[in-house]
Amino acid sequence: MNSKEIVTKEMATERILLAKKEKNATFDEIAEAIGRHPVWTASAIMGQATMGEAEAKKLVELLDLDESIADSLQEIPYRGSLDESIPVDPLIYRFYEIMQVYGTSMKSIIHEKFGDGIMSAIDFTMDIDKKEHPDGDRVVITMDGKFLPTKKW
Amino acid sequence: MNSKEIVTKEMATERILLAKKEKNATFDEIAEAIGRHPVWTASAIMGQATMGEAEAKKLVELLDLDESIADSLQEIPYRGSLDESIPVDPLIYRFYEIMQVYGTSMKSIIHEKFGDGIMSAIDFTMDIDKKEHPDGDRVVITMDGKFLPTKKW
Amino acid sequence: MNSKEIVTKEMATERILLAKKEKNATFDEIAEAIGRHPVWTASAIMGQATMGEAEAKKLVELLDLDESIADSLQEIPYRGSLDESIPVDPLIYRFYEIMQVYGTSMKSIIHEKFGDGIMSAIDFTMDIDKKEHPDGDRVVITMDGKFLPTKKW
Amino acid sequence: MNSKEIVTKEMATERILLAKKEKNATFDEIAEAIGRHPVWTASAIMGQATMGEAEAKKLVELLDLDESIADSLQEIPYRGSLDESIPVDPLIYRFYEIMQVYGTSMKSIIHEKFGDGIMSAIDFTMDIDKKEHPDGDRVVITMDGKFLPTKKW
Amino acid sequence: MNSKEIVTKEMATERILLAKKEKNATFDEIAEAIGRHPVWTASAIMGQATMGEAEAKKLVELLDLDESIADSLQEIPYRGSLDESIPVDPLIYRFYEIMQVYGTSMKSIIHEKFGDGIMSAIDFTMDIDKKEHPDGDRVVITMDGKFLPTKKW
Amino acid sequence: MNSKEIVTKEMATERILLAKKEKNATFDEIAEAIGRHPVWTASAIMGQATMGEAEAKKLVELLDLDESIADSLQEIPYRGSLDESIPVDPLIYRFYEIMQVYGTSMKSIIHEKFGDGIMSAIDFTMDIDKKEHPDGDRVVITMDGKFLPTKKW
Amino acid sequence: MNSKEIVTKEMATERILLAKKEKNATFDEIAEAIGRHPVWTASAIMGQATMGEAEAKKLVELLDLDESIADSLQEIPYRGSLDESIPVDPLIYRFYEIMQVYGTSMKSIIHEKFGDGIMSAIDFTMDIDKKEHPDGDRVVITMDGKFLPTKKW
Amino acid sequence: MNSKEIVTKEMATERILLAKKEKNATFDEIAEAIGRHPVWTASAIMGQATMGEAEAKKLVELLDLDESIADSLQEIPYRGSLDESIPVDPLIYRFYEIMQVYGTSMKSIIHEKFGDGIMSAIDFTMDIDKKEHPDGDRVVITMDGKFLPTKKW
Amino acid sequence: MNSKEIVTKEMATERILLAKKEKNATFDEIAEAIGRHPVWTASAIMGQATMGEAEAKKLVELLDLDESIADSLQEIPYRGSLDESIPVDPLIYRFYEIMQVYGTSMKSIIHEKFGDGIMSAIDFTMDIDKKEHPDGDRVVITMDGKFLPTKKW
Amino acid sequence: MNSKEIVTKEMATERILLAKKEKNATFDEIAEAIGRHPVWTASAIMGQATMGEAEAKKLVELLDLDESIADSLQEIPYRGSLDESIPVDPLIYRFYEIMQVYGTSMKSIIHEKFGDGIMSAIDFTMDIDKKEHPDGDRVVITMDGKFLPTKKW
Repeated sequence: MNSKEIVTKEMATERILLAKKEKNATFDEIAEAIGRHPVWTASAIMGQATMGEAEAKKLVELLDLDESIADSLQEIPYRGSLDESIPVDPLIYRFYEIMQVYGTSMKSIIHEKFGDGIMSAIDFTMDIDKKEHPDGDRVVITMDGKFLPTKKW
Repeated sequence: MNSKEIVTKEMATERILLAKKEKNATFDEIAEAIGRHPVWTASAIMGQATMGEAEAKKLVELLDLDESIADSLQEIPYRGSLDESIPVDPLIYRFYEIMQVYGTSMKSIIHEKFGDGIMSAIDFTMDIDKKEHPDGDRVVITMDGKFLPTKKW
Repeated sequence: MNSKEIVTKEMATERILLAKKEKNATFDEIAEAIGRHPVWTASAIMGQATMGEAEAKKLVELLDLDESIADSLQEIPYRGSLDESIPVDPLIYRFYEIMQVYGTSMKSIIHEKFGDGIMSAIDFTMDIDKKEHPDGDRVVITMDGKFLPTKKW
Repeated sequence: MNSKEIVTKEMATERILLAKKEKNATFDEIAEAIGRHPVWTASAIMGQATMGEAEAKKLVELLDLDESIADSLQEIPYRGSLDESIPVDPLIYRFYEIMQVYGTSMKSIIHEKFGDGIMSAIDFTMDIDKKEHPDGDRVVITMDGKFLPTKKW
Repeated sequence: MNSKEIVTKEMATERILLAKKEKNATFDEIAEAIGRHPVWTASAIMGQATMGEAEAKKLVELLDLDESIADSLQEIPYRGSLDESIPVDPLIYRFYEIMQVYGTSMKSIIHEKFGDGIMSAIDFTMDIDKKEHPDGDRVVITMDGKFLPTKKW
Repeated sequence: MNSKEIVTKEMATERILLAKKEKNATFDEIAEAIGRHPVWTASAIMGQATMGEAEAKKLVELLDLDESIADSLQEIPYRGSLDESIPVDPLIYRFYEIMQVYGTSMKSIIHEKFGDGIMSAIDFTMDIDKKEHPDGDRVVITMDGKFLPTKKW
Repeated sequence: MNSKEIVTKEMATERILLAKKEKNATFDEIAEAIGRHPVWTASAIMGQATMGEAEAKKLVELLDLDESIADSLQEIPYRGSLDESIPVDPLIYRFYEIMQVYGTSMKSIIHEKFGDGIMSAIDFTMDIDKKEHPDGDRVVITMDGKFLPTKKW
Repeated sequence: MNSKEIVTKEMATERILLAKKEKNATFDEIAEAIGRHPVWTASAIMGQATMGEAEAKKLVELLDLDESIADSLQEIPYRGSLDESIPVDPLIYRFYEIMQVYGTSMKSIIHEKFGDGIMSAIDFTMDIDKKEHPDGDRVVITMDGKFLPTKKW
Repeated sequence: MNSKEIVTKEMATERILLAKKEKNATFDEIAEAIGRHPVWTASAIMGQATMGEAEAKKLVELLDLDESIADSLQEIPYRGSLDESIPVDPLIYRFYEIMQVYGTSMKSIIHEKFGDGIMSAIDFTMDIDKKEHPDGDRVVITMDGKFLPTKKW
Repeated sequence: MNSKEIVTKEMATERILLAKKEKNATFDEIAEAIGRHPVWTASAIMGQATMGEAEAKKLVELLDLDESIADSLQEIPYRGSLDESIPVDPLIYRFYEIMQVYGTSMKSIIHEKFGDGIMSAIDFTMDIDKKEHPDGDRVVITMDGKFLPTKKW
């Protein structure tokens, strides 16, 4: 039928991460090469975002990868990067814990400041920074999502 | 045995929220009165943090509440503010979705910037702000947690 | 503390439905009285939407209910109207089945027509109509949600 | 035993989607070629509906695919297109959320308009349209199912 | 507001079963009194079917029950009579086991005899009989549901 | 060690169904050939019953299959034909729904007719018939299980 | 309606156990009084078996309990004595562990000795004995269930 | 690295059962050959117990199997022989049902006879016997576990 | 029937903790009063261990509590102190995480040092200490359980 | 692309354990060779910790393994060594049971000694020792984690 190799999103992720490691490329460097933010770039590499053609081509060029991987990066993914509904990896679990502990507080404060509605997870960006501190560096995560008022009709 | 009313954390939350509403008090105003950040103040009101004696007393004074509520606010809670392991409320669910979609990206980027370890959810603060924007205001959440390197021994 | 009765969303729903039945009021009539669409009106009565003050007052007036119910209707709810994660009531289950059977088709077609993104369930309206048909009447449900393109950054 | 290749529904879906992409064929075009509605056509391609012989043959002809795929398309499927009981993909999850938030309202309104019974998910059709709008295009989904009165005997 | 007692479906079931026991009435006798089949009558008493006004009135008359129970019997129920998704009561579990063991066979045979479609559980009746047998009596359950062909469109 | 091919129950099912389709053999015809009821025959083909040697040999002969498949058909299976604890296929789900909706009624009626005990799912037979009807044909399923009185000791 | 107190199975269990403790009565003594085996007697007290009228009357007489409790003991129960599907109490969990670890061995050996079929849990008795041993006494549990051959038809 | 084949516990089980069948060897015969009880022997073959070197060697000799299988039999297993937390195979499920129905009775009687503690599932043996009976043979399972008193300190 | 108040384990826990707080009594002080280790004492107060009569009496005396609470403390509990199978409280969750991350390592090392068997959770003691440290104090938990070799028979 | 073999964490674990067995190397010996504690060394071999380059190289040298395994040992893992959320292996389950039974006691005592906060599972070490005892040797597990006070802000 077709001689082109079909590369699943999982295979693409695995090959990109291997090439990234061999070339000692950081997410920052890849992001700069394709003209995107490092967190979004990581999410695309992790198979959770959809690259445009130009972005995908620049990535495979930078990392000396096959074109079939560029195709895969342009496919819209079935999203969901975790294997379990409650994650067990300690780093990822902490975000579940934050939602469990602070979820009702976030709801109350957002409603107090904005009224009825939600923070969009689609019209949404995230930043992850390192803040140096004498007692130990700190991870600073900034989530920025459009407020969507609950429609009445 | 004892004539003092026992007030559970759930009852305290309910009564404080009612009084807050009747007095038209915002989380910002309560936070200022007790000398704490509004998000932390909300989390204590929601039964997820432990107030000190002075803080608890100022809160019940401000809202004209019973002393038994101040006692309850000083109890260390069994944390976890949600009824389900996967929340159904749309506002809270979006944070679950962010973890599902971006969890592996957050893990990769934190490891690349900091090495093996996690962002603490205990030595942790959160800010929730409103950023005005012509296309619709945005919710900006800043999470700031100490990086804890995974110990080797 | 406070002599006003606290009415939970569940209690409000129960009392409104009882009064609605005794007055033989339909959702259409209530909706017209408060100036809203019948589906939205039903969702507010079911404790899943937030009424404005004027709407809530008209509703309690129409059905001869207590003011405390009007207060309850203005509270922003913790949404989620079902007791189980997979519903067992046959009418409600069919919507779960539609999602299970047609979910991937809906995803494919929406992406083909709109690109990467989702149909909002917040900026969203629904219509439920009866279409007469000689072989048996048909339920026609129209869902209309804003397309939200997945943000790249 | 038998030299004909056995093609599972999953394999058929994968190969059809690949061919569809290479030929730049839309669901509309395929649907027109086989004489069916695009949503039903997509559901058959996704392995959730059973094609007749003529429909299946036209599809493999249009996309230059193997006859074994036409056989697979005529098999009655074990339906259920999702891997999880609560989907994590944001687009598909929103339909779960709609059922969670509006399920009881849909039940109340259908019973008020039709009496005791359900909307069939079998004698059922669906339409997915794009409605242009200055504030952002809208996804309009129309579900049309026969009302089945609950039998008494 | 209203002096009439609200009787939930659960309360109605409990009171009817108690009265039935005290009057030594069988399901057959109750069914005959209201002009319905005993299995349907039992399902209405168990809170899973909706009685008409005349049926409900005859039932409360026969068992000397309050009118409020007749009201409750006319409410359309949220169906689902079991507390767990996998039942533990041995009698009920056996029906789960039959579905687990014979489910794929039932699917294959129904498709072979009828084509693609399902047996309706809504346009559906059931009979439960006792068949005497020298090696031990046998329970004979006859399910009779309309075949609904899966719609193509 | 051993040159005979090991055929799992799953592989045997798949190969028998393929051969059955190619020979256009119905369950009725296979059942007649081996001297068993069609539903039991289907359940053996689906890997849920244990054939005797003569039955298995006749089946592989009829369908021109390998002897190793006859061996597999004689193995006592780990029963359970479904992948999920709550099935999603609409045809199979309806039997789950019947158990959910009518389970307590079946329990009450069986106890009223037989006393404390259960309907055996082991000393059990099932019939699946097509009943023609002007409003649409009906599926008639007859389950016939020995009543087992709960032992007292 | 009816002045007799309705005693649920749970309430009956609780009251019997309290009376049993106050009278220092053992299961052996109660069993002897009613003419049954101690394990069956315990299961009836725990709400999992159905006493005959004479047995129930002797029990309430022996323990000076109300007649309403004798009524409750004669009701056929919804069986299932545990709150969780996987028990957490260490004593009860060990039986779950035995099933997890030895389940496939029990299946193999029973099939080798008896052919295809099961051990009935309905035509079933159990003994629990104390076997003294110098290294520590041993619990000896004897389960005795009728072998039910899987029916072929 | 190493030319010896690695045989997982699952592979060893499969190969032993095949050889056992071809040699028509019973668990009793294998047990006698290795000097162990048939139930323990079955559990070792099922990958749930750890054989000593001499036992493993005798087993592979008796059944003409490869030495690598003897190695596998000496590995301490990750125990747990079932795929689901609630088994669906009818024979194995009955043991789950016994635990569900009689669990609280077993707990009460063991505590009454022995005090606070548990029956060990580690210092534990099991016997499975066939008891002939005119009404149908019976399966007799004897579990014998050391009583472990709950430690106080 | 009986004028003595029945105090459930949950009620006893609640009342003891309240009295403990009012008297400013530590677990160490209570443990010393009853002659037991503080961790065991805490577990008895939490409703997870069984006190002897003398211990229970000393406790209620020390804390000025009712005799009915001493009775409750002597009841053998249904153990399991958590509401969820995966705990959400951060302090308790960490022990789940340790089991998830280190479980296989603990298994390997215990088997290497002791052979096949387990660490008893019944013949088991635990110590919880505070170790001061300039970088932050440390929690030191010592678990000490009898090794139980897996029985062969 | 790249001729180096990619070795997953699972493959690395399997190969190291095989080599360890063939060389009769203990965790103590491997730990000494790489200059780390045996428990940490085991956790790294089990794929739950990240080795430094020098450590990984010494390990592969000691066990004559391929360099690709040293690479794998330096990858930061997705942690979580168990397949199920509630483990079934008896040795590992006991740690789940300890958490279920003693979890609330550990929480109470840690809070009493340290105030509000948790024991870190990241800044954490563990020791597993064998303590000889005439009544049977004992497993002694020492967990030592930094106390992290819950931050207030």
